[in-house]
Amino acid sequence: MFVRKEAAMSKIELRSKILKKNKSIAEDIRSELNSNGLWCMNLIGSPGSGKTTLLEKTIPLLSKKGRCGVIEGDVKTDYDMKRIAALNIPTVQIETSGSCHLSSEMIKNVLPDFSLEELDFLVIENVGNLICPVAYDLGEDQRLVVVSITEGDEKPLKYPAAFVSADVLVVTKADLEPYVDASVKKIVDNAKSINRNIAVFVTSAKTGEGIDSLTNYISEVFSAKVE
Amino acid sequence: MFVRKEAAMSKIELRSKILKKNKSIAEDIRSELNSNGLWCMNLIGSPGSGKTTLLEKTIPLLSKKGRCGVIEGDVKTDYDMKRIAALNIPTVQIETSGSCHLSSEMIKNVLPDFSLEELDFLVIENVGNLICPVAYDLGEDQRLVVVSITEGDEKPLKYPAAFVSADVLVVTKADLEPYVDASVKKIVDNAKSINRNIAVFVTSAKTGEGIDSLTNYISEVFSAKVE
Repeated sequence: MFVRKEAAMSKIELRSKILKKNKSIAEDIRSELNSNGLWCMNLIGSPGSGKTTLLEKTIPLLSKKGRCGVIEGDVKTDYDMKRIAALNIPTVQIETSGSCHLSSEMIKNVLPDFSLEELDFLVIENVGNLICPVAYDLGEDQRLVVVSITEGDEKPLKYPAAFVSADVLVVTKADLEPYVDASVKKIVDNAKSINRNIAVFVTSAKTGEGIDSLTNYISEVFSAKVE
Repeated sequence: MFVRKEAAMSKIELRSKILKKNKSIAEDIRSELNSNGLWCMNLIGSPGSGKTTLLEKTIPLLSKKGRCGVIEGDVKTDYDMKRIAALNIPTVQIETSGSCHLSSEMIKNVLPDFSLEELDFLVIENVGNLICPVAYDLGEDQRLVVVSITEGDEKPLKYPAAFVSADVLVVTKADLEPYVDASVKKIVDNAKSINRNIAVFVTSAKTGEGIDSLTNYISEVFSAKVE
C-alpha cells in the first residue's frame, strides 16, 4: 500500500512539474508570436472529427485576410501535412510517435521552420484526442474544439474539459444530421451549459455551411487583437 | 538542460513502473476471470465511434449465448451505464474524472460489484480515446478496436498502435458510407496492412448489418476457450 501511495504521489508531482514547464514555454511562445504580429489557434478534437478538412476549407478563405502557417500534429504519418501543404501554405508536421498530445516544447522546436515575420495566422492542429491535449497550453491565442455531429450530441458533457477550456466550438459534418441520431442544437446547448461564453459555428465542409462565418470571426478577432 | 533530461528520465521510468504494475494486476484479473469461466473483452475507440450503441445491439444477442456483465469507462457522466443497464444487464460505471484511459487497478476495484460466478462474458467499454488506453492491459482475453466510417479510412495508419494491439476490428456506422468521403474497404485494407491477423466485422447499428456475425464470433471464440 505504501508503494502504491508513493507512486501516485510522484505521478501527480511529475505531472504538475511537466504542466508548469509547459505553461512557461507556452507563455514565451505567445509573446514571441504576438510580438511578430501573429495570431495563433489550437484545434482540439477526436480522431476523425474533421479538423484537417475544416482547415482545407477555411485556410483558402483566411489566406485572403492574412498569411497562414500550419503545424500538423499526428501520432503517425504526414498525411495531414501533405493535404495542407497542397494549399501552398507553409506547413510543418510534428509526428509524436505515440504521444497523445502536442506540448509547447514541440511547438517551440518547429517555430524556426517558419518565417514568422511573414505570417499573420499560425494554426496548430493537435493530435486527434478529446482528453489529453486539453491540459497543454501551446501558446495559442484561441482554442477551438472541433466535434462532428456523427460523434453524438452528449460529447460536451462526457468530455467537459475540452469544451470548458475552448473559446470556440466548431460543429462539423452538419450535413449528416438527417442520417444520425444526434442533434446539432443539443451539441450546442450542452456545450453552452458548461461554457456559456463559447462562440459557436456550425459547419459542413461538403455544403460550405458556416465556413465563411468562421473565417470572418477569426479574422475579426485577429484584427481586434492587433489594433 | 540537466533538469530537462532528468525530468524526461523520470517520466520514462515512472511510465515503465506504472505499466509494469498495470500488467501484473491485469494478469491476476485474467486468471481470476478465467478460473470463473469468464471471457473478457476490452473495447477501444474514439469518442463517438459507436461503442455503446454497438453494445446495445450486441448484448441482447450475446445474452442468448451466455450471461453478460458490462463495465463502462467514461471521463464524466454515467450516461453509458444507464443505457446498458436498461438492457437488464449488470453494469458498473467507472468515472475517471479526467483520466484518459482505464487501468487494471480500476477494473480490479469494481470486480467485487459483480457476481462473477454468475457471468460468462465481461465487456469493458474503455474511455473514448484511440491512443492512451492501448498501453493498458485490463485483463481482457480479446481486444476490439471500434472505428466508425465517418472517422475516415486512414485511421489505422494514423493511430497504428490501437489496430496492431487489437484482435478484432469493428467498423461501425457502415450505413453512412454513401454520405462520406471514406471507404469501408480502405479502413479494412489499412488495418490488415499493419495487422494481417485482425478479425474484421463491418457493422451498422441502424440496419443491423454485421451484428449477428460479430456476436457469433465472440460466442465461438469463447466456446473454444472454455472447452
